[in-house]
Amino acid sequence: MFSVRTDLAVEAKEFYEEKNKGKLSGVEVKETNDGDIKITSVKILNDVGERIMSKPVGTYVTIDVPKLTYYDGEAMDRLSAVLGKTLMKMIKFDDSMTALVVGLGNWNITPDSLGPKVISKLMITRHLKQLVPDKIDERIRPVCAIAPGVLGITGIETSEIIKGVVNKVKPNLIICIDALASRKLDRVNSTIQIGDTGISPGSGIGNRRMEISQKTLNVPVIALGVPTVVDAATMASDTIDMVLSSMIKQSKTGGQFYNMLKSVDRNEKFEMIREILEPYGANLMVTPKEVDMVMDSISKIVACGINIALQPRLDLEDINKFLN
Amino acid sequence: MFSVRTDLAVEAKEFYEEKNKGKLSGVEVKETNDGDIKITSVKILNDVGERIMSKPVGTYVTIDVPKLTYYDGEAMDRLSAVLGKTLMKMIKFDDSMTALVVGLGNWNITPDSLGPKVISKLMITRHLKQLVPDKIDERIRPVCAIAPGVLGITGIETSEIIKGVVNKVKPNLIICIDALASRKLDRVNSTIQIGDTGISPGSGIGNRRMEISQKTLNVPVIALGVPTVVDAATMASDTIDMVLSSMIKQSKTGGQFYNMLKSVDRNEKFEMIREILEPYGANLMVTPKEVDMVMDSISKIVACGINIALQPRLDLEDINKFLN
Amino acid sequence: MFSVRTDLAVEAKEFYEEKNKGKLSGVEVKETNDGDIKITSVKILNDVGERIMSKPVGTYVTIDVPKLTYYDGEAMDRLSAVLGKTLMKMIKFDDSMTALVVGLGNWNITPDSLGPKVISKLMITRHLKQLVPDKIDERIRPVCAIAPGVLGITGIETSEIIKGVVNKVKPNLIICIDALASRKLDRVNSTIQIGDTGISPGSGIGNRRMEISQKTLNVPVIALGVPTVVDAATMASDTIDMVLSSMIKQSKTGGQFYNMLKSVDRNEKFEMIREILEPYGANLMVTPKEVDMVMDSISKIVACGINIALQPRLDLEDINKFLN
Amino acid sequence: MFSVRTDLAVEAKEFYEEKNKGKLSGVEVKETNDGDIKITSVKILNDVGERIMSKPVGTYVTIDVPKLTYYDGEAMDRLSAVLGKTLMKMIKFDDSMTALVVGLGNWNITPDSLGPKVISKLMITRHLKQLVPDKIDERIRPVCAIAPGVLGITGIETSEIIKGVVNKVKPNLIICIDALASRKLDRVNSTIQIGDTGISPGSGIGNRRMEISQKTLNVPVIALGVPTVVDAATMASDTIDMVLSSMIKQSKTGGQFYNMLKSVDRNEKFEMIREILEPYGANLMVTPKEVDMVMDSISKIVACGINIALQPRLDLEDINKFLN
Repeated sequence: MFSVRTDLAVEAKEFYEEKNKGKLSGVEVKETNDGDIKITSVKILNDVGERIMSKPVGTYVTIDVPKLTYYDGEAMDRLSAVLGKTLMKMIKFDDSMTALVVGLGNWNITPDSLGPKVISKLMITRHLKQLVPDKIDERIRPVCAIAPGVLGITGIETSEIIKGVVNKVKPNLIICIDALASRKLDRVNSTIQIGDTGISPGSGIGNRRMEISQKTLNVPVIALGVPTVVDAATMASDTIDMVLSSMIKQSKTGGQFYNMLKSVDRNEKFEMIREILEPYGANLMVTPKEVDMVMDSISKIVACGINIALQPRLDLEDINKFLN
Repeated sequence: MFSVRTDLAVEAKEFYEEKNKGKLSGVEVKETNDGDIKITSVKILNDVGERIMSKPVGTYVTIDVPKLTYYDGEAMDRLSAVLGKTLMKMIKFDDSMTALVVGLGNWNITPDSLGPKVISKLMITRHLKQLVPDKIDERIRPVCAIAPGVLGITGIETSEIIKGVVNKVKPNLIICIDALASRKLDRVNSTIQIGDTGISPGSGIGNRRMEISQKTLNVPVIALGVPTVVDAATMASDTIDMVLSSMIKQSKTGGQFYNMLKSVDRNEKFEMIREILEPYGANLMVTPKEVDMVMDSISKIVACGINIALQPRLDLEDINKFLN
Repeated sequence: MFSVRTDLAVEAKEFYEEKNKGKLSGVEVKETNDGDIKITSVKILNDVGERIMSKPVGTYVTIDVPKLTYYDGEAMDRLSAVLGKTLMKMIKFDDSMTALVVGLGNWNITPDSLGPKVISKLMITRHLKQLVPDKIDERIRPVCAIAPGVLGITGIETSEIIKGVVNKVKPNLIICIDALASRKLDRVNSTIQIGDTGISPGSGIGNRRMEISQKTLNVPVIALGVPTVVDAATMASDTIDMVLSSMIKQSKTGGQFYNMLKSVDRNEKFEMIREILEPYGANLMVTPKEVDMVMDSISKIVACGINIALQPRLDLEDINKFLN
Repeated sequence: MFSVRTDLAVEAKEFYEEKNKGKLSGVEVKETNDGDIKITSVKILNDVGERIMSKPVGTYVTIDVPKLTYYDGEAMDRLSAVLGKTLMKMIKFDDSMTALVVGLGNWNITPDSLGPKVISKLMITRHLKQLVPDKIDERIRPVCAIAPGVLGITGIETSEIIKGVVNKVKPNLIICIDALASRKLDRVNSTIQIGDTGISPGSGIGNRRMEISQKTLNVPVIALGVPTVVDAATMASDTIDMVLSSMIKQSKTGGQFYNMLKSVDRNEKFEMIREILEPYGANLMVTPKEVDMVMDSISKIVACGINIALQPRLDLEDINKFLN
């Protein structure tokens, strides 16, 4: 059966509620606000929730800003602080442990470059703890990072590269950063999702092929994603829905026409979407025009939030001093 | 009345033929081949042709490559040579004249940055002819260039900036480079259009608001464009057509359903497209993923073709020596 | 006579004081602090000051930050506020006037791209005041901008392009943004200079050839510059001074050797610098490695400061809303 | 003892010959020409050669172009062909073997980004051989690649990341791409060096800390480097030498002054260089201005040469078809 895939738990929830007009079961949703920032926690509790949401049991927190404020340094700092706090609650990490941050995605494709961009803005300390332990503030925790690239560029499954590095580095926590596809343009570049179940196959812009999770790596994996493109299949699907419902409205209830329209089933729809998008290749990307300009701001916000969460014994001033 | 806008004369022609299943009148089309490169010349002869094509009387030459070969230097050189030859035929330019090349578009938005990118690869000589005339090979013609930016970034109509510069520089020929929107993804980054009627309002990715032509500038204006994005409205329109025709096929000819579907008129369709795209804002862009990587190659090909056309008394070796 | 050129008034002052061990005359210097930000105002009062400083009579304010904090949004905002206040004091600009901001420099060379980068982050309003006056908040002032490029890329004197645009736009104030060369690496990317005398020939990384000032344009011209590279000639000159003084220290005062070293005059030194740098071409650039990464932050700070100064009737929130 | 470090064997040779005015022993040098391309092979034969050249026993081939021709596709293709031929002679690689190409360097610092840039232009096939073996031309050999980043960004020794990946991928050949520092600006971006002894600690712009070689990885390692910056220490050293020799010329042979100048020894000189560069930090970089523009061309040439060498059973057309 065809289903519009979404990387965001809040979208999976919306999508389900739209189609089923009922309450979710096996899923617990909580919303809080921190100023104008909305924080939604979606907990998938059991296999009923798993099936409904097409996501494994676990916690998915979404941080929404009314409008991401690329020009407002103070607002960016505030968002980083909320992200840091949220991450800190989710991870169990102490001073003796080493964190490995993995920046997934393709650095040559702007909207897929979030992961690599975040990596270059992190407070990286593991090598200093090893090379010059005496010169390093003891409150600083060891953090390291990689940007493994994507299968098409490396010819190696991303998860294999991560495994190889994990075997050498032996981290106690992994945080994976990824650019996602959203169903709605207004979520693009204005939502951050953090989950504690790692990365599933097929998610992300680059469609990872293999799982990156505690199950496969024997280390807890936090996944942090920001939608940076709109899914082209979703846009086509929404177009078709709109055409159908517009015609349904125009026809008499119960008439031949009405029934025919109502009977257009998911398989047919899937066929149409395939037909529409095939000439465009797998290669299509729908982005807001300013994508080149905003990736820097978002990667700064995310990197700063991670720095706060991984270095709780430093204040922001110490972290900034270190980075400059 | 709604009509799907296209910047390409070949697409306007295809579109008309599709809808009208008849021959074009007032338009002359000629196709030739240079190896695997197809050259199509569309001449709009009179006001009948103008109305049909929504483009002014003039000549529009399209150069098509089966597949733009970003990695094949020899093929790129060959394409530049064909472009150079085509341009040379279209322009009347001698050694005493000055050419001004205008690189339209927004350098911050990758697929709209073709113009500014071409500018930085041109053989620019006007200042040398003025400052160090004795040191400059006398076969070299004076060429200058500007990248005026877009209205949203400058707050000044592009055509006003060009007029201001034209008043100072007093060129005898203007060549405007622009990134265009195509109706078909397979034309993106693989077609070059050259026209002798300048730039019309509403064309280009940035939707120029004012005409840039001999009429407005008192200097002949050649327009050179390459489609680098797919028009989102076109994609939506194609989707709707496909849904309708798929349902028409399923229904009996002459039945109530069939007639209803047939009667969906252009205005309704236009309304639907508006509804679909509005939530996405004016801001939407559909591009092939590799766009960041190909713009450099295309701008090189275009710049090289212009260099060849404007400096016919130099061979490629001289031009390359100058540029390096 | 040879003199190490500097774009910064504070450096001209330091340089003079170093060489002459005396007080400056014809120059008034005032230092204040705003938190950890140091603001130095250098006023050149008369032609004595002009000769000493190699800069025209006028006011030059330098804003120094101990360390530019690319990762600290709050500190960036604070710096923008100080810059905004400083600019506001210097300009006479009211609601009915139009400002034109000119982003000098070459967008293809990272450390010279400050001007064009600032332009794309400004609050541009002139076109909206003209096109949709009713929809635009009346407190908003008309601002427009251009990035005219550099002579080597355009073949047109930058000042000619500006004149052409000024003739069309008729602004009441011009602000020119430029990347500068500093004598000291620790000033690079951590100093902002604002002057009310426009841009002199030979200043900036690209070595402007013609003056851009009230004298040439009939409009007041504020010049805002940030040093983003170290001058290679300065680095060579400093090296030679160090070698000489190190050997002078080792030789007996009054001895033949001592006298010889003392007698190395400026012309000889100039010859040596020429000899050292010539094989490297005019093309050499000494930059901190992270230059690619910091230009975005600096351009944001500068753009934000200008937005504050040009739109005093809006608060930061309004400006940010407009930009997003 | 202080010695100016160079990554290029031809420079080590020149440097030795300059200082010692004698012939090298333990080193075999051969020069050939392929059109205007000069190919120099430096073979270090034994430990005498090792000591003199500060490089391990092995073969170092340098490919020089009179002027790298960024705008001349045909010349670029020719250079790639020469590079391909040279590489092919050096590697022992058959159809059953897997090659891993490692793109060293920091993708955020333009002149250090050669490695990562080359990686994204390679013909990557290993995953296709594994995932869709039937659909893949049997003449295609398995190639994969990684860009491991630099210690400052990852916190992990580059060699450790490579080891981790090598353990998973088990390649039969490794090719390491690296950006180098040259002693002479005219070698920058116009020389390619290929060596069969891997990468030594301290080489490259980023100063690798650990060896990447057959000894450490149990796989043959070919190192391919292009100088993209000038060493700042070298520039300072050259300046000092020039000052000294200029003064030596002016003084009488055998006089007190002459003798004093002659006696400035290497340690003193080293001290001076340290003093000159220290205020600039480790962070200094001397590059030609156009660096942002040329990296794309060089990475294309290098990637194309590697594609030719690793896929000898395909012609260029097949390779280009694959890449597009």
